[in-house]
Amino acid sequence: MDYESLKGFRDFYPREMRSRQRVFSEIAETARRHGFREIGTPALEPLELFEVKSGAEIVEETYSFQDKGGRDVTLVPELTPSVVRMFVAKKQELSKPVRWFSMPRLWRYEQPQSGRLREFFQPNFDIFGVSGIEADAEVIAFAHKVLSNLGLEDDYVFRVSHRDVIQGVVGEFDVTESQEDEIYRVVDKSERLDHSELRKRLEESGLSIEEAEQLISVTERKGGTDELDTLRYNTGSELAHEGLEELRKLWDVLDDYGVSDVCIFDPSIVRGFDYYTGTVFECFDPDGDLRAIFGGGRYDDLVETFGGQSTPAVGFGIGDATLELLMKQSDVWPAEEHRTDYYVAVIGDVRDTAIVVADSLRDDGYVVEMDVTSRGFSGQLERADRMNAENTVIVGERDLADGVVTVKDMESGDQEQVPVEEFVG
Amino acid sequence: MDYESLKGFRDFYPREMRSRQRVFSEIAETARRHGFREIGTPALEPLELFEVKSGAEIVEETYSFQDKGGRDVTLVPELTPSVVRMFVAKKQELSKPVRWFSMPRLWRYEQPQSGRLREFFQPNFDIFGVSGIEADAEVIAFAHKVLSNLGLEDDYVFRVSHRDVIQGVVGEFDVTESQEDEIYRVVDKSERLDHSELRKRLEESGLSIEEAEQLISVTERKGGTDELDTLRYNTGSELAHEGLEELRKLWDVLDDYGVSDVCIFDPSIVRGFDYYTGTVFECFDPDGDLRAIFGGGRYDDLVETFGGQSTPAVGFGIGDATLELLMKQSDVWPAEEHRTDYYVAVIGDVRDTAIVVADSLRDDGYVVEMDVTSRGFSGQLERADRMNAENTVIVGERDLADGVVTVKDMESGDQEQVPVEEFVG
Repeated sequence: MDYESLKGFRDFYPREMRSRQRVFSEIAETARRHGFREIGTPALEPLELFEVKSGAEIVEETYSFQDKGGRDVTLVPELTPSVVRMFVAKKQELSKPVRWFSMPRLWRYEQPQSGRLREFFQPNFDIFGVSGIEADAEVIAFAHKVLSNLGLEDDYVFRVSHRDVIQGVVGEFDVTESQEDEIYRVVDKSERLDHSELRKRLEESGLSIEEAEQLISVTERKGGTDELDTLRYNTGSELAHEGLEELRKLWDVLDDYGVSDVCIFDPSIVRGFDYYTGTVFECFDPDGDLRAIFGGGRYDDLVETFGGQSTPAVGFGIGDATLELLMKQSDVWPAEEHRTDYYVAVIGDVRDTAIVVADSLRDDGYVVEMDVTSRGFSGQLERADRMNAENTVIVGERDLADGVVTVKDMESGDQEQVPVEEFVG
Repeated sequence: MDYESLKGFRDFYPREMRSRQRVFSEIAETARRHGFREIGTPALEPLELFEVKSGAEIVEETYSFQDKGGRDVTLVPELTPSVVRMFVAKKQELSKPVRWFSMPRLWRYEQPQSGRLREFFQPNFDIFGVSGIEADAEVIAFAHKVLSNLGLEDDYVFRVSHRDVIQGVVGEFDVTESQEDEIYRVVDKSERLDHSELRKRLEESGLSIEEAEQLISVTERKGGTDELDTLRYNTGSELAHEGLEELRKLWDVLDDYGVSDVCIFDPSIVRGFDYYTGTVFECFDPDGDLRAIFGGGRYDDLVETFGGQSTPAVGFGIGDATLELLMKQSDVWPAEEHRTDYYVAVIGDVRDTAIVVADSLRDDGYVVEMDVTSRGFSGQLERADRMNAENTVIVGERDLADGVVTVKDMESGDQEQVPVEEFVG
């Protein structure tokens, strides 16, 4: 009987694993150079951790269950609550700002499709303890650096907004809190809906036709900082004005970071989580063909909600599946062959010497495979070829009688005899 | 409200994470040099994958549940079935022998205690396609190399046996299959039971007093290869004789690898999984104070059971919690402080230049933190101290008027002025 893995879950064979590891090491190295320090979180958490503020949609999509002790637990669907829980647990000892990153796997029970899986990786970055938009800009500039270090150039755009903008506009309408949540969900999907469908969904969420049209016209003000000014004239909401003011300042700092040219203002960016309080942003391919490559924002209330002293925070997470699609589309996904530096062929009863040779090469840092199959000479050379070996060291009884082994360059075919002592000690 | 993580699950703060990562990189690097290639497996699998051959005890301890589509799934409790599933899926394309490793997290619903957690890491190594005990010896020698590369010396001992030995002896008794399984479970725990308790448990499993005593005397024949010979005289089982013969040959190869002095024969080693067919081994601290650091063995039937062509295989997995205890006991657990190479202090309205300086240092590979809090000069220096910064680059308005920044060595306190152009381009 053949067994299969679950739908939406991936097996990584050596080649794919190597590509992924190279991408993840590059991301981790960029994070470290920016002063982020790596943490690790559990795969399973109490379900209640996500019921507080992550939003109903996420909770519906969790792999949650009762464990054998009767606790409601869930595979972690998004990382922020775990990170905040860890921050709160050590809040006294930590010197602020705290910059943390991690490379977790996450799980959501969604319909698998291009760029969306049930098990995925989501490199995650957070800064705690800085309230100014300087930290928001730093995070966006850092995200930009991550992508450019991966070889992406002009292949992405950041869409940036501020929660107060949309909340200010919607706050002027007469809607309940649950209607408001539904409206944000619709706005969040507005890119994928045509005008009439969008208006219909907004009306179903509790808006009048006029309100729906007004909101749509707000969400369509995407572009440069001039759109910030235009929008200011088009809405009377004081909260929205404050949000626009913050974004104006943010753009100044983005200028200092030299990243404002990859950022556009997009008031339809609301993000799916209920805990965002300020700047929110997502990153897309320029044509908007793919799902968001990543998203994040400011969540200044979550630490306090989780029992800590009020602490501002901002962060983002990168979805690995969309990132891979984007990198492949831009032809920068690493796809290097595995190589074997030395294959050690064993001819005759010389295993003890072959082991010494192999270990000595490994101690020098080489990737070495030694035959353990006792197959014949030609079979061993064939294997060396298959493993992409650069050299084969032939350890044979006759050579050893003269105190030598034969080293064969697999590309040129050149052979030379080397005293076996060179491999000893 | 404060939230807590689940019992038996760990949070890794930056310091612990760094130690763990260093240990795991060392293990991965040793594996790569030995020709193992990394793979990745899902965290969740169909439950049936473990019901085939992993043994009832493991299945009882799983975090299993029905997913939202009604499938019986489980967090992976041990890796071998997933690895074999992956091997079978690509059986045609793979050039044998296949050497794979991975560094998965695994989950078991057990009572947490020293060295045993509910979520743990288990670096895992397998070789497919070699039937000879040469591969068994290579795996043991490789395990030895992993431990010695981690700085462990004379801190561990491998206890080695062969499934045929215990199966041969027990096979002479008149017991049912389920009684036999229970007997192996008792033998597996024999180290932690005194003689009378052990005999009682064996009797409860269906043996007569005489049989129980005979089995106990077999499990007590631990030691060098002389015990192999003694045991051969003390049992009439042909199967046991074959197992002892195999072990004799294994010891010869272990001699070639120079690792026979860290191996002892121990017929009480049976391993908890039903799929082992040949050599089995575990690694312990010399005093046997800790739980097994790792265990593994030969499982020649599993590939066929899972729908593949009959393929011999051998492998082992290292439990991270016990490994950490052993390394700490031997004082080789890495515990280096994080360091920050440069802290960039920002004095006045010079953020754009500070950003250029910070990025240029990062491009050179340094770990750089830049102030984003706009706090005063002394506050920034204090932060630099707390972050263990080696140098602070002070970017100030007055200095910049002269085209320089000040670089301060944080240990000596020495300062020098450096032209800001050195950081540009």
